[in-house]
Amino acid sequence: MSDPDIRPGETTVELPAPGDAALRFIGRIRTPWAQREECPRQGRMDGPECRIELNPVWHPALNGLEDYDMIEVLYWLDRSRRDLVRQSPRSDGATIGTFALRSPVRPNPIGTSLVRLVRIDGGTLIVRGLDCLDGTPLIDVKPDRCAFTPMAPPKS
Amino acid sequence: MSDPDIRPGETTVELPAPGDAALRFIGRIRTPWAQREECPRQGRMDGPECRIELNPVWHPALNGLEDYDMIEVLYWLDRSRRDLVRQSPRSDGATIGTFALRSPVRPNPIGTSLVRLVRIDGGTLIVRGLDCLDGTPLIDVKPDRCAFTPMAPPKS
Repeated sequence: MSDPDIRPGETTVELPAPGDAALRFIGRIRTPWAQREECPRQGRMDGPECRIELNPVWHPALNGLEDYDMIEVLYWLDRSRRDLVRQSPRSDGATIGTFALRSPVRPNPIGTSLVRLVRIDGGTLIVRGLDCLDGTPLIDVKPDRCAFTPMAPPKS
Repeated sequence: MSDPDIRPGETTVELPAPGDAALRFIGRIRTPWAQREECPRQGRMDGPECRIELNPVWHPALNGLEDYDMIEVLYWLDRSRRDLVRQSPRSDGATIGTFALRSPVRPNPIGTSLVRLVRIDGGTLIVRGLDCLDGTPLIDVKPDRCAFTPMAPPKS
């Protein structure tokens, strides 16, 4: 009841220790935003260039990505609490379910962004359209589903 | 070299134990596809209805999701190997980097799908557009980024 991070009307649940599956971070995202308050609410394609730095072991896995203009990026929102089922994002105190929001506060705080790939410098992607904090751990990169045409023919 | 799951030209890397972050599964996805060979390559909006079953603790977190027609679903591709940096999806043996594919084989095997929300039955979402195996563990559900208008005004 006295948790200072909870707004009126918000609801938490008791969670078991996580551990159903484990992630390996594959790199880091560098953005101009060092504090949560500085981050834009949603990324914009005319926003600043940001850097996605892949760990060296994964550099060969970028081969072919240069053919795509739009890519999907997954990252771990490592400063987010995970136990809110209802949240109060508005100043009027109205609450809404966590799954009806794109808030970073969620049971598995994974952010997904669709970004424009400006260029690839070795193992670093230069992109526009991110909205996350500087230093955010990277989970995955893949071609945008709309642009991606499977190399293998559709199954019959 | 004798790994029967590796195609010619594919490359693996040695990975440390995972553990940078831990996921909690929040439910299960029920689809008509029990074997990988049966799954469609990409989900279709005119595909069959599938069920996303949330664990009871998360049912209140669905409140408000009914306002959205299109939702984003994240799930764990629990049968996928995670150490391929280059893959050979075509029969001609050409290889391409893992991050230039939407293959389930990736360092963190998280699938993302954009699906049509047909209806919500209690704690179960009925959707169209999935392509994953029956029983796939659920990680997250959120409104499609295109449809989602933040309830809070943009920051100045």
